[in-house]
Amino acid sequence: MAAERLVVIGGDAAGMSAASQARRLKGPDELEIVAFERSRWTSYSACGIPYWVSGDVKHRDDLIARTPEEHRARDIDLRMRTEVTEIDVAGQRVRAVDRESGDAYWTGFDKLVIATGARPVRPALPGIDAPGVHGVQTLGDGQALLDSLDALDPGRKRRAVVVGAGYIGVEMAEAMLKHGFEVTVLNRGEQPMATLDPDMGELVHEAMDGLGITTVNGAAVTAILTGPDGRVSEVATEGRTYPADVVVLGIGVEPEAGLARAAGLAVGPHGGILTDLAMRAVGHENIWAGGDCVEVLDLVAGRTRHIALGTHANKHGQVIGSNVGGGYGTFPGVVGTAVSKVCDLEIARTGLREKDARAVGLRYVTATIESTQRAGYYPGAKPMTVKMIAEHRTGRLLGVQIVGREGSAKRVDVAAVALTAGMTVEQMTALDLGYAPPFSPVWDPVLVAARKTVAAVRGAGS
Amino acid sequence: MAAERLVVIGGDAAGMSAASQARRLKGPDELEIVAFERSRWTSYSACGIPYWVSGDVKHRDDLIARTPEEHRARDIDLRMRTEVTEIDVAGQRVRAVDRESGDAYWTGFDKLVIATGARPVRPALPGIDAPGVHGVQTLGDGQALLDSLDALDPGRKRRAVVVGAGYIGVEMAEAMLKHGFEVTVLNRGEQPMATLDPDMGELVHEAMDGLGITTVNGAAVTAILTGPDGRVSEVATEGRTYPADVVVLGIGVEPEAGLARAAGLAVGPHGGILTDLAMRAVGHENIWAGGDCVEVLDLVAGRTRHIALGTHANKHGQVIGSNVGGGYGTFPGVVGTAVSKVCDLEIARTGLREKDARAVGLRYVTATIESTQRAGYYPGAKPMTVKMIAEHRTGRLLGVQIVGREGSAKRVDVAAVALTAGMTVEQMTALDLGYAPPFSPVWDPVLVAARKTVAAVRGAGS
Repeated sequence: MAAERLVVIGGDAAGMSAASQARRLKGPDELEIVAFERSRWTSYSACGIPYWVSGDVKHRDDLIARTPEEHRARDIDLRMRTEVTEIDVAGQRVRAVDRESGDAYWTGFDKLVIATGARPVRPALPGIDAPGVHGVQTLGDGQALLDSLDALDPGRKRRAVVVGAGYIGVEMAEAMLKHGFEVTVLNRGEQPMATLDPDMGELVHEAMDGLGITTVNGAAVTAILTGPDGRVSEVATEGRTYPADVVVLGIGVEPEAGLARAAGLAVGPHGGILTDLAMRAVGHENIWAGGDCVEVLDLVAGRTRHIALGTHANKHGQVIGSNVGGGYGTFPGVVGTAVSKVCDLEIARTGLREKDARAVGLRYVTATIESTQRAGYYPGAKPMTVKMIAEHRTGRLLGVQIVGREGSAKRVDVAAVALTAGMTVEQMTALDLGYAPPFSPVWDPVLVAARKTVAAVRGAGS
Repeated sequence: MAAERLVVIGGDAAGMSAASQARRLKGPDELEIVAFERSRWTSYSACGIPYWVSGDVKHRDDLIARTPEEHRARDIDLRMRTEVTEIDVAGQRVRAVDRESGDAYWTGFDKLVIATGARPVRPALPGIDAPGVHGVQTLGDGQALLDSLDALDPGRKRRAVVVGAGYIGVEMAEAMLKHGFEVTVLNRGEQPMATLDPDMGELVHEAMDGLGITTVNGAAVTAILTGPDGRVSEVATEGRTYPADVVVLGIGVEPEAGLARAAGLAVGPHGGILTDLAMRAVGHENIWAGGDCVEVLDLVAGRTRHIALGTHANKHGQVIGSNVGGGYGTFPGVVGTAVSKVCDLEIARTGLREKDARAVGLRYVTATIESTQRAGYYPGAKPMTVKMIAEHRTGRLLGVQIVGREGSAKRVDVAAVALTAGMTVEQMTALDLGYAPPFSPVWDPVLVAARKTVAAVRGAGS
């Protein structure tokens, strides 16, 4: 018998990264690892689901980084289709229910990792559960959508309505376009991509129009209507209805922190578990939490946020596994970087939007420039717009947003590092970024934006 | 008459950027600007010449950012085909010779900008001036090469020899391949791309083999042989000769600092003019220098280097123009970032190579990883190798080298910013880089490299 038992709740990125890293540091004699996963899958790329649905990725299994069998081969006692229903913090045990047999049992732990993920926001709309209405959060959701598309009478494969115009919404718009649907995106907000400022969202809107995707702003869905066959037929908003042969919900997610909350763990303003820098649940020496169920520190805003993103979940798992295994790791926070695309349109952001800056009391200036991702004369040079936000007076970089064509989005990483380092836009103008005509104009667009933002900082006076 | 006269020597990137920026800040009443350029062209992209020669860029004029007429329209008295032959520092005047008429005259200055650029290294080899042997530093060089290719008897358009395997060498290898030549690159060094460590250069060598480009290492050219028609026929090295219908010299450049040196200005160990942070020639209040004729501070090595690169020249010009025009700007230095490509192979570097680190007394560790630029399951995912160098014990990032396919090279910018900020590789593991399957694996390759380098730092003990 091992000296200690680690229990992991949730078998996806954060949980299984933590388990794997802990196992690297401690063998089975030292540490027993029991992991519970309520679904049929482990360690898969939820971010890849839109590309599997679109057909760009051929097989569901391509999205699975590590199967249950692979985890078990590394001496992790992984219990699939088993849901943890209660955490008894004082008693150091969790109650699990086998979803196949219905059997329930308690398992003790010395150390606990909570990685329960996020759940899709599913508004309580009439008709939301009708056949033909699909979320895309899990592999099961993706499979159900693909099965539903396969089963559709070809005559009814004409109109898709996507509810929501965030990352998942625009990615699913592309996927449905690739299936041959006329696509309408219903967006509650002022512009698509509310993770950008409206002026940059407008560029996305225009580009989506150009791609043949209809985006309706200010369109709050009030009901999903069904036809005589019981299947979805229309989506209703305040103003009008939109015919729909299939509806995809891309409304976002919220932390799945119910278990933790019920157990008395601290939960933040966005509903996520609060942790310290070592990813320990606040106030608990032997409980860690990571992935989509926690809040992370936004290093620019100085506040916590909820960001469901596989790359953070993996980092959390790595840090937790190191600490559980007797090593050392911290997750200092995020700057809010995100990249996405719709067809050949690339969208990126990092740091604060204007409204984020206002919300935390920062006064700021902005500058927006248009350039190209390659030298203007080089084949394939295409437009790229960069918006930069800097603090009034100090000129400290606060955020960058990019909308452009192929080769634009990952430029945002330069700003992500500059934000992490606390650079001013004036310092950024001197950055030694890679230049050759196939890769960049002689002034990289990020540098052009920095120069214009410097002028804005100076022009704004004191 | 204007209150002051600015004289600019050299009408390319640094010189004309300086002139333009000074003009933005001061009108013709305040500042007269006289600029001398010995060639027929101003403000063109020398870095674009290989792509013009290859045919990717269709017209020579596409490489010209601003014509002499455009400069003159902005009240810059630009004198083309006019070479400055002497700087009289004490007398505050320069001597210029009109290359058309042969007329020579003195022009006084209140402020002087030296932007004389670089000249190609042209070894004193027998046959180096034979017809069919071409450099590619200037638009004139590129035109001569293209004219020479046009004039070649189709039967003699078979074998191209490129001398040198640095950036220009590999770019010209691609260009000659596109013209249908069998291409042999003769490389004096151990591996192509001596700006990388040999282990990374070897990856470039293998990839060039795969592209059908023959690279011969350790091949120092001893002579260029001509046929009965006087035209190049073979290139000789110590060991053997290589038949050649055309020879392209891609051996690099050195600072064109003869004028400055003759005028008593300080010149550094690499033959470039030495400046202060405001780009003033050291010890001279009213003389500035920038572009390919100066040495720049390498912020990682703590030494000056000579780097001929348009992006630096433009920054220098901007800084000089601001200072000349009564504003303020500095050029703090470089970290040595460079990107290039041969066909679809991308090559990037920043910071120090192993030998650079040794040369300045740094002890270091390295780690090399292989990954893909996109999520492994996403269409178009292709290999990308990242080598990272960090300081022993402190873990401070010292350098990054990347060899990979499309979408690899500009990832080096993340390291360029991290170097500028003095980050450790451990800090880098937490960087919030953009993630979505079309853009990156869930662990960005740079982060994977950082993690492995952290392990190397710790494994190396104290």
